[in-house]
Amino acid sequence: MSAHSRLSLNQGTIKYASLAEALEVSQRQGLQSIGLWREPVAEVGLERAAQMLRDSGLRFSSHCRAGFLTEPGETARRQALEENRRAIEETRVLAEAGAPGSSATLVMVAGGIPEGGTIEDARARFEEGIATLAPEAEAAGVTLALEPLHPMYASDRAVLSTLGQALDIADRVGSPAVGAVVDAFHVWWDPDVAAQVERAGRDGRIASYQVCDWKTPLPADVLLSRHLPGDGVVDFAHLTALVNEAGYQGDVEVEVFNADLWAKSYDDAVAEMVTKFGASVGVHLAEFAIA
Amino acid sequence: MSAHSRLSLNQGTIKYASLAEALEVSQRQGLQSIGLWREPVAEVGLERAAQMLRDSGLRFSSHCRAGFLTEPGETARRQALEENRRAIEETRVLAEAGAPGSSATLVMVAGGIPEGGTIEDARARFEEGIATLAPEAEAAGVTLALEPLHPMYASDRAVLSTLGQALDIADRVGSPAVGAVVDAFHVWWDPDVAAQVERAGRDGRIASYQVCDWKTPLPADVLLSRHLPGDGVVDFAHLTALVNEAGYQGDVEVEVFNADLWAKSYDDAVAEMVTKFGASVGVHLAEFAIA
Repeated sequence: MSAHSRLSLNQGTIKYASLAEALEVSQRQGLQSIGLWREPVAEVGLERAAQMLRDSGLRFSSHCRAGFLTEPGETARRQALEENRRAIEETRVLAEAGAPGSSATLVMVAGGIPEGGTIEDARARFEEGIATLAPEAEAAGVTLALEPLHPMYASDRAVLSTLGQALDIADRVGSPAVGAVVDAFHVWWDPDVAAQVERAGRDGRIASYQVCDWKTPLPADVLLSRHLPGDGVVDFAHLTALVNEAGYQGDVEVEVFNADLWAKSYDDAVAEMVTKFGASVGVHLAEFAIA
Repeated sequence: MSAHSRLSLNQGTIKYASLAEALEVSQRQGLQSIGLWREPVAEVGLERAAQMLRDSGLRFSSHCRAGFLTEPGETARRQALEENRRAIEETRVLAEAGAPGSSATLVMVAGGIPEGGTIEDARARFEEGIATLAPEAEAAGVTLALEPLHPMYASDRAVLSTLGQALDIADRVGSPAVGAVVDAFHVWWDPDVAAQVERAGRDGRIASYQVCDWKTPLPADVLLSRHLPGDGVVDFAHLTALVNEAGYQGDVEVEVFNADLWAKSYDDAVAEMVTKFGASVGVHLAEFAIA
């Protein structure tokens, strides 16, 4: 099966690949787009990473990830903001280096509840951080893509739990540089998902659509409980139709953290991703010539 | 520490206790109220269970549990409805047998997504089942307490995931016999929880307030990831204030499924529950003379 034109490999799906390996396997498997992680980019340095991406001819669909803005105290706050500023700059440079149709999207994970703190306070600090960073992101042409994570991560990873909550923050911050990630794994259960995807589309806030399936029983490490599309219970026909109707025309990333998938060769993992994406998501996805 | 007057032991907290043992330890530890599970009641038979409860002098705070209305097909539907009708009758009888201030509350767990099905269809079947049962529950003087479960259980246990969703169903069904459970473990992460608890209070739909704490990492079996109040991250001061302000004046159940707690003697487990409830919840709970 040839890769869907809008399919993008999120590098987390082949976690142990270097940037060079990730770019090469994407090209070999016929992909047009890739979402990068900060660590493999840092390994070669930003300038070199940008050149490698340019040489690959791939689009750049997102940069993973920044955020983690929930720790209290002035020092922690300043350090987190500086880290986010570096990530914004990386995103700007990589999006320029990617093929036409690349997206200067920086995925923002909120961060968890600090020791002894409350979720309300952590949420307020996250929003304050976004409000601080939004004008800087806007000046750089970068979108801060707030990613609600499944509520099972609400205590230790992301106090941002629903798409509605992300859009409420975007409304209050009031910057066009604030968007949201619609990640199937994180939002599929939400009784309000249809209304919120529609709202996100109407407000021009869908910065990324990521697909990844949910299946139980959950593994011991719930961070690794993600599956390729079609291997679980998510209704991708329904969710993809919602995203289509909301007007999203960008790349669609597969971001799967799964120990079995990571154990495969990069080619096998990506080939399997291409096939399962095509069967479960691609068939429902509107075709657009990106760029 | 003496037990708070509104504290009720949910029998799931001492899962391996028989009905007789659960009633005895509750009396010994100075509790005034108990929430029962169907299986230990069935072991002795409903009539005998009612007599034992009457003799104990305890209030009856809820019956756990019925629901599981998401399977397709006429046979499955009829069987599930019959099982729920038996549970409604048990609830009526036990609430009559309990001390004054007992509550004829039947906890309803939705059920998961059937093999090959979608969450939308499963949700529709659950709502249809509630609409069928509501007039019968009303005639019996029983409240069907819809229990939203944490979204990590949405695929295999409960397609009812938020308090807002439960209240929407209650509105559409339009019966005073439909209520909702506010279970801290299941709703603590919800960005909309304050608004929905207020709405539930305004609509007279808070049928039960259950307390149980959230802590990570989650154990391998996520069903056993519950902790006594104060052992995790839930902000019980905030949540209990919301429930107070919403006008809830009933019993407050501790329902904790935890292998370490189950390994203790019933007296030790209940004594620990009394102490931790007092420190984390009781201090924030309005005092009412129940009954």
